Amino acid sequence: MEKQFRTNLINSLSGFKSVNLVGTVNPGGLTNLAVFSQVFHVGANPPLMGMLVRPDSVPRHTLSNLLETGYFTINNILPEFYQAAHQTSARYEVSEFEACGLTAVYSTVHPAPYVAESSVKIGLQFVEKHTLTINNTILVVGQVIEILCPTACIASDGYLDIEKAGSITCSGLDGYHTTQRLSRLPYAKPDTSAK
Amino acid sequence: MEKQFRTNLINSLSGFKSVNLVGTVNPGGLTNLAVFSQVFHVGANPPLMGMLVRPDSVPRHTLSNLLETGYFTINNILPEFYQAAHQTSARYEVSEFEACGLTAVYSTVHPAPYVAESSVKIGLQFVEKHTLTINNTILVVGQVIEILCPTACIASDGYLDIEKAGSITCSGLDGYHTTQRLSRLPYAKPDTSAK
Repeated sequence: MEKQFRTNLINSLSGFKSVNLVGTVNPGGLTNLAVFSQVFHVGANPPLMGMLVRPDSVPRHTLSNLLETGYFTINNILPEFYQAAHQTSARYEVSEFEACGLTAVYSTVHPAPYVAESSVKIGLQFVEKHTLTINNTILVVGQVIEILCPTACIASDGYLDIEKAGSITCSGLDGYHTTQRLSRLPYAKPDTSAK
Repeated sequence: MEKQFRTNLINSLSGFKSVNLVGTVNPGGLTNLAVFSQVFHVGANPPLMGMLVRPDSVPRHTLSNLLETGYFTINNILPEFYQAAHQTSARYEVSEFEACGLTAVYSTVHPAPYVAESSVKIGLQFVEKHTLTINNTILVVGQVIEILCPTACIASDGYLDIEKAGSITCSGLDGYHTTQRLSRLPYAKPDTSAK
């Protein structure tokens, strides 16, 4: 297979992906913002999220910043600014906030920048990392230390309605999609019907 | 936070997730099928996919089977059978294929069962695993050895149109969603506009 063909195909295989902006700052105060489609849930108690970073990819500043400062943010992407979010994947010398027209905001809990335009903002503290033997991809695990989101999007059972919050999803390297809920299903038990 | 509230909330934070059925078989020939929302792209060359498995979760048979036989399959979920796919998360004594009304099919390349009802079927060979220190979650990495999907869904540049293939996405523990494409965006360069 030709290289770009293979890259597009293999990137599509896992299905729809989360797509988020990861915000960090270096020890000198320069902010960094990078679009990530490899962020995922790791555990609820303690509250953990993971992301994969390729050592040779644009988000390498994300990795060095979060290792140096110990903190990073995960911010959802809305249809109103997905082009700007995608544009953060270009190789800028300046902060991607400035280059892509997005706004950095801060809380008092940690130094990493949030994206003001995002409706779901998560602050995390670095916990551990693992390097995959086969291709040097790095798994970063962070513990959730702050959640900023509209309370109207949180159901009485804790489910955060990310569709209502405006989050989008992505496919492959460059496909962006909105969603339409089918339903929420009850907890599955052996004695209930599958249909 | 109350336990179930926390579980629902934290599971929602990462954004929309891939949702797939993972098929395995034990050395005695008993098939297993489990719904996974923590499958992700790991690398294109070699073609790698990863998934997270909690040691105390229902899909623990998935883990033991793929370690014993060396193979597993990842199968997409369509709106026509997402209730049956969700139902595989119940704790069955028999094969989930049988219990949930889904059909096992096989290729000649490896022993793991595919889901006949899925339009995108991926065969993988186990490569490596890592155990997270903080909560014993296990990252499993597999190498893609077979892809079965409609050629009409593969664009000329290799992008697999999973929306056209009927794949759905999920949120939290139990939310299922179809998608609607916004667009595919061009490769981002610093000198192109963000808007």
